Amino acid sequence: MSSSNDEKCSAIENERSKSLFLMREAVHPEVYIEMSLSNIIVQTESEFQQVSIVETPFGKTLVTDGKTQSAQADEFVYHEALVHPAFVKVATGNNAMPKRVFIGGGGELATAREVLRHQSVEKVVMVDLDGTVLNVCRKYLPEWGGDDVATNPRLELIVGDAYEYLMNCTETFDVIIMDISDPIEAGPGIMLYTKEFYQHVKTLLNQNGVFVTQAGSADPICLLDIEPGSEDDMSCFAPIKNTLSEVFDCALPYSVLIPSFGTDWGFVMAFSSPNPEESKCEFFNIDEEIVDDFLTSNLNHGVKDDNKKIDVLRYYDGITHKRMFSLPKTLRVKFLKDKRIMTKDNPVFMY
Amino acid sequence: MSSSNDEKCSAIENERSKSLFLMREAVHPEVYIEMSLSNIIVQTESEFQQVSIVETPFGKTLVTDGKTQSAQADEFVYHEALVHPAFVKVATGNNAMPKRVFIGGGGELATAREVLRHQSVEKVVMVDLDGTVLNVCRKYLPEWGGDDVATNPRLELIVGDAYEYLMNCTETFDVIIMDISDPIEAGPGIMLYTKEFYQHVKTLLNQNGVFVTQAGSADPICLLDIEPGSEDDMSCFAPIKNTLSEVFDCALPYSVLIPSFGTDWGFVMAFSSPNPEESKCEFFNIDEEIVDDFLTSNLNHGVKDDNKKIDVLRYYDGITHKRMFSLPKTLRVKFLKDKRIMTKDNPVFMY
Amino acid sequence: MSSSNDEKCSAIENERSKSLFLMREAVHPEVYIEMSLSNIIVQTESEFQQVSIVETPFGKTLVTDGKTQSAQADEFVYHEALVHPAFVKVATGNNAMPKRVFIGGGGELATAREVLRHQSVEKVVMVDLDGTVLNVCRKYLPEWGGDDVATNPRLELIVGDAYEYLMNCTETFDVIIMDISDPIEAGPGIMLYTKEFYQHVKTLLNQNGVFVTQAGSADPICLLDIEPGSEDDMSCFAPIKNTLSEVFDCALPYSVLIPSFGTDWGFVMAFSSPNPEESKCEFFNIDEEIVDDFLTSNLNHGVKDDNKKIDVLRYYDGITHKRMFSLPKTLRVKFLKDKRIMTKDNPVFMY
Amino acid sequence: MSSSNDEKCSAIENERSKSLFLMREAVHPEVYIEMSLSNIIVQTESEFQQVSIVETPFGKTLVTDGKTQSAQADEFVYHEALVHPAFVKVATGNNAMPKRVFIGGGGELATAREVLRHQSVEKVVMVDLDGTVLNVCRKYLPEWGGDDVATNPRLELIVGDAYEYLMNCTETFDVIIMDISDPIEAGPGIMLYTKEFYQHVKTLLNQNGVFVTQAGSADPICLLDIEPGSEDDMSCFAPIKNTLSEVFDCALPYSVLIPSFGTDWGFVMAFSSPNPEESKCEFFNIDEEIVDDFLTSNLNHGVKDDNKKIDVLRYYDGITHKRMFSLPKTLRVKFLKDKRIMTKDNPVFMY
Repeated sequence: MSSSNDEKCSAIENERSKSLFLMREAVHPEVYIEMSLSNIIVQTESEFQQVSIVETPFGKTLVTDGKTQSAQADEFVYHEALVHPAFVKVATGNNAMPKRVFIGGGGELATAREVLRHQSVEKVVMVDLDGTVLNVCRKYLPEWGGDDVATNPRLELIVGDAYEYLMNCTETFDVIIMDISDPIEAGPGIMLYTKEFYQHVKTLLNQNGVFVTQAGSADPICLLDIEPGSEDDMSCFAPIKNTLSEVFDCALPYSVLIPSFGTDWGFVMAFSSPNPEESKCEFFNIDEEIVDDFLTSNLNHGVKDDNKKIDVLRYYDGITHKRMFSLPKTLRVKFLKDKRIMTKDNPVFMY
Repeated sequence: MSSSNDEKCSAIENERSKSLFLMREAVHPEVYIEMSLSNIIVQTESEFQQVSIVETPFGKTLVTDGKTQSAQADEFVYHEALVHPAFVKVATGNNAMPKRVFIGGGGELATAREVLRHQSVEKVVMVDLDGTVLNVCRKYLPEWGGDDVATNPRLELIVGDAYEYLMNCTETFDVIIMDISDPIEAGPGIMLYTKEFYQHVKTLLNQNGVFVTQAGSADPICLLDIEPGSEDDMSCFAPIKNTLSEVFDCALPYSVLIPSFGTDWGFVMAFSSPNPEESKCEFFNIDEEIVDDFLTSNLNHGVKDDNKKIDVLRYYDGITHKRMFSLPKTLRVKFLKDKRIMTKDNPVFMY
Repeated sequence: MSSSNDEKCSAIENERSKSLFLMREAVHPEVYIEMSLSNIIVQTESEFQQVSIVETPFGKTLVTDGKTQSAQADEFVYHEALVHPAFVKVATGNNAMPKRVFIGGGGELATAREVLRHQSVEKVVMVDLDGTVLNVCRKYLPEWGGDDVATNPRLELIVGDAYEYLMNCTETFDVIIMDISDPIEAGPGIMLYTKEFYQHVKTLLNQNGVFVTQAGSADPICLLDIEPGSEDDMSCFAPIKNTLSEVFDCALPYSVLIPSFGTDWGFVMAFSSPNPEESKCEFFNIDEEIVDDFLTSNLNHGVKDDNKKIDVLRYYDGITHKRMFSLPKTLRVKFLKDKRIMTKDNPVFMY
Repeated sequence: MSSSNDEKCSAIENERSKSLFLMREAVHPEVYIEMSLSNIIVQTESEFQQVSIVETPFGKTLVTDGKTQSAQADEFVYHEALVHPAFVKVATGNNAMPKRVFIGGGGELATAREVLRHQSVEKVVMVDLDGTVLNVCRKYLPEWGGDDVATNPRLELIVGDAYEYLMNCTETFDVIIMDISDPIEAGPGIMLYTKEFYQHVKTLLNQNGVFVTQAGSADPICLLDIEPGSEDDMSCFAPIKNTLSEVFDCALPYSVLIPSFGTDWGFVMAFSSPNPEESKCEFFNIDEEIVDDFLTSNLNHGVKDDNKKIDVLRYYDGITHKRMFSLPKTLRVKFLKDKRIMTKDNPVFMY
């Protein structure tokens, strides 16, 4: 007994010394996540934001302007959820494999990593504003993609403004992915969440093309019992969904738990549909087997276009798809109540 | 612009003053949730534990021994998820409505509240160890159920040891619900998570009866890439599922996001099945409409057996059911790897 | 050994549960004191500020607008330091005992408590702006003074604006004590820290009368190597001293450690002096015995003017006096460099 | 107005982003100091302890086993207070300048830096247990002393056990300085705080030689109203003073505020005295001018024995001396009540 007590005791003492250095992040004006900080690997200021790479219990973590962007332990959840459902939709929509993909943002290179897994992809154009983020991720976060992704011949990597790029773009795409910062006041990305932008983007999609964007926190409670648009309403999930619904025949919201964010995270996929039935559908129902078969057939299981095999997806498959697209009733009720549309003149900001 | 800056500024200042008092809870040895504390309503020590009721951004919150038990903003998520799927299973299993229900624990009275919504329920036996918790919840948390529930003639409320009660019980039940503390070292509930206990409980279920238990954190990342049973493995979700699978034909894990816990939470439902096909099923697939129809028909929409109407369920319905029972791939992989069984002689503890 | 480990271990566990509720106060924009919060006794909003009385490791604690005002464990240090040196000065200045005293602020009633200890005091006028603070202190902090002080016939207690009162005052005093909030932006007390106010107050002092004010943080390091008046200079100790030096022949700064504030705290005593030698003195040197003899002879050792004996002073005596008035070199150097004067048109704010 | 609000607002926002990374240190089981952490420069584990060098608002800071050892902003306060009063005592005791000095611990090299300022010093022997601490301080904390000190020909630097060294030492010294860790359970330095050790050290002092040791927290409130030796008594200041009083004719406690420690810090100086009057003295009274003259004459104002001039002392001088040795009444009362003596068989531990 004495020895087990000793062990327990020293375990507790270890906790104490481990907790000397901390990272504390506000996920809400009155709720914080606090975690041990075992290292500050990089700390710099880019032209646009403060950029840090640190080590926490979630492994290496990219933090910009005080907000966790992605963590080693669960970045794959976010990036698989952002990328693959759109590919499933395109492939099952017209039985034509997605070939040309645009990524707005995506500086960690992990979104491109997931896109490049698909054998059918011939060209990826990725436009990220912040070259500093790109460089530090490439150097310090090779697990996210790094050089393997950055040097992939199918990838065209552009440091620039995704909004400007798309407004002047003459190419079209099968999938357009927005992996950008949340719409916060004075944030550079606010134009990328407007009806006007979505209307233009729609013109850049091929037939059966799909647009998908991250959509901020999907905490079903924060969204509950709060008057939409009131100062306590700190989510943009519903406004983004609503705005996309105004522009596209179909806009499907979905969400996944990101443990390092401490909450569910929202995404919205949007597309045109000639099928009036489908356009009424609120959720993306699809047989598990169809998802799994598509993933098996189209993933080349290697980032580098060589024979090096990599693991199959760790988060997304046919069953997980069901979870993601079956939103809890709390969220669905909120979506019915919230009528806000995001426009150039009336943007909506989140916390 | 100046006025909006003023407003924003004073909003930030309000945050600062609001954050003077805090509640900080470890959800992992190196991860904390910290939130504003606007009031300490009750603080006492029962025979078994420290008991506090406080006010946080999640509303009134019951905290025992430093762990949040349930919060006003989202207690309904936990309690609906714990209770109703088992009722759906019983009702769809043999087309006989559940009549007799046992609740182990449940001191907040909210589990009984959800059970009593079902018109078919004739008798509920609830056995909770801690009379102090029962009393403070009844007095200070009327929104959870309070007197309306405690005085319901269909409810038999017993302050005592659920383990002892069930070991000596000669009655049988359609649904047995364990709403008890996590299996922590030296916790009083450790026996309620053992194979031996489950074997006995099985004998107390009527035909088509269902057993359901809360099963601790279901954080899919904490469960990932950790050797089962290693000191870093702080979850009991898989061991509880495994142990129930040893005893019952079918044990189905499911999970929901509880925002005030900062993570997904696990439950396991278990039952005997004459159907060998069903016993192979890993998940509880059921048409949305069947769930929704059952809820519509069996919920009396009133706690007090009188004409007072209450809202329909806020979290659970047919679509939410799909989300709950479609576990993410990360969790399913973990369940395949973790072989631990919880017995009297080899209990498994969680953080 | 095993038992001592057990004890130590359980001690550490107790710490963890004790630390669930916390008070966190910024003492600097980047430095916080955080302590266990065992109770929130009162929480209200007065006409002027948020007012809380809580329990921390320092005992009962008054907090207004997020700043600790005084704590049970060490309020006597602050209040003895504020009151008694001025009385020593008056008594040793002209061998006439101080009879008439004015207190600006002092809502906790502890400053009045210390003043009333002096047998020679015939009348105390106390003017505090915030009747709510007065009431909650009187009710919940009887250890500070409470009814015994509030009902003392020698005390005239006025709820009102000390600035207005003194500007219209026709009485004169032997000691004028300012026990008011720090000069923060938009704070009500800003006028009470200006050269104009001090010039007027000087006219209300009897011959050999003494003015004394609290003067904010006296942290010798925060004051060091910072350009006076720069945005990093968050102390008002030197400007208050400088401003009083402009008005009075002699202004003597002194400081004491207030553990619940986490730092040394500053005071300035000011008086006119016919003796040109004394007016050059930077510090208040006095034989220990003279201080101790005065305290012995003039303290009636009872708050209530009855025979009830109370303890002698706990913090202040002849030796402590030396410590208080012998400022460390770091502070003295800062005082030489900082030339700021506080006027109506050019106030100085502290953090 | 709008612009000043903007500025204030952005200042507050800066605070928030600055506070993302934090260091939190327990100064008491229920009181923490928390500060911004702008960098983790070094993090390593020596044979004896965890060693970190970080950047906080107090500048570069050495932290071992979770406890701040010294910080750039105020290390000079601690090191000047530890070293110079003993030199003043030796020099004024027999009018012979101190020539030979022993330092136990002192790995930051700052104690040696202060010793080497004295022109009269011919030889310094410094014995520190932890070569890792020495190396990282020398490399990363040059402001503390660094190579200039480490390579000074008057310094003999030994990595080893100061206790062993002194027990086997045949040399004698004018000043022996213990700059070692607090006496915590299982700490390596516990023997260096015992009566037996002090008895031996006394034999190694030259005539009029002085022994001085750091003595832990001198928080006058933590020491107050607590039964000496009770579990709430977490200070060793009084026991160290008492133990030295048993061995030496005279043991003089003194204290200084160390802002980065958040409290006053204690030291005890001890010496033999043929003068029975002096041995009764409780405090070290000395004319300011004598201190200042000695410092002016004996400090060579240069670390490197070359012509490079450095600043005079920043904290210690004749007036500061008075503050340090005039302990507040609260502490003096505690010293009278606490009778504990530290021996090999009955050590006393602090928090």
